[in-house]
Amino acid sequence: MDKLANIPYAQIREGDTAFYKRTLTERDLILFASVSGDCNPIHLDRDFASESRFGERVGHGMWVGSLISAALATVMPGPGGIYRSQELKFLVPVKIGDALTVKLEVLSKCARTRGVTIATIVVNQHDQCVVRGKAVVIPEEGAVTVDSFQLPEVAIKAEEAVQG
Amino acid sequence: MDKLANIPYAQIREGDTAFYKRTLTERDLILFASVSGDCNPIHLDRDFASESRFGERVGHGMWVGSLISAALATVMPGPGGIYRSQELKFLVPVKIGDALTVKLEVLSKCARTRGVTIATIVVNQHDQCVVRGKAVVIPEEGAVTVDSFQLPEVAIKAEEAVQG
Repeated sequence: MDKLANIPYAQIREGDTAFYKRTLTERDLILFASVSGDCNPIHLDRDFASESRFGERVGHGMWVGSLISAALATVMPGPGGIYRSQELKFLVPVKIGDALTVKLEVLSKCARTRGVTIATIVVNQHDQCVVRGKAVVIPEEGAVTVDSFQLPEVAIKAEEAVQG
Repeated sequence: MDKLANIPYAQIREGDTAFYKRTLTERDLILFASVSGDCNPIHLDRDFASESRFGERVGHGMWVGSLISAALATVMPGPGGIYRSQELKFLVPVKIGDALTVKLEVLSKCARTRGVTIATIVVNQHDQCVVRGKAVVIPEEGAVTVDSFQLPEVAIKAEEAVQG
């Protein structure tokens, strides 16, 4: 079973960086629409999107936000942290097949609140910044190692209908 | 087929409000973990979470963010808008069964950028504010009506394993 380990507050240094990668799939568009309720056709309907300003389906901006959240929760500072805030600027649309990298960089630490401010930048395979912003997270003080939860299989039925 | 209609820039007024409701289910926890990659057991593992500071599984904070995104994309200003930015402060954990209401309120309009700044507040069934922040969206200038995409069925296999 995969393990997730944290970086305790005391071990985090200004300038520390961490990365998290994910490529947008058609499946992600459907699952994000399902879990949020955003069934806007620009994300889902191939014909509709081909006539739009984007020329094809685009990812939900907040899906990119969800990758930042995952990076903070699983990589730096990792499990046990408390997510306090997030700022996001959506700069460039994300399309199916785009390989995104979340880049985290510690900007500052606050000894009083125990909060860590982290720059959160997401770039695509062309090195374009698609989303930028910053987060504040309160890392766990001690060392934490947890088992990554093994998700059950998620199946999209009538998948051929989506290809349309 | 459900229709989604927008509110064009010219028709939006400061003080306008709109609402979007959703209740957190176990299914949402699994789908959000699947689509973001955040398999932190605090969201997914009943036994692990029962020993945590929260006492039970909690929703991903950014899942609440995804509801704000859905509210903006489907209710106000609705389809055709361009999502420019979002600020989020995570205030109260969300638990399975919590009935959330996203409340949108127009704070200001910018004639030059055509951007609309919207307060984005999410409250639970106890009227606690769980997430607050604000968004900037550029609404479509003209009237837009689109067919809401009919999602294929999403099935979680071995669902009993999740009950554990």
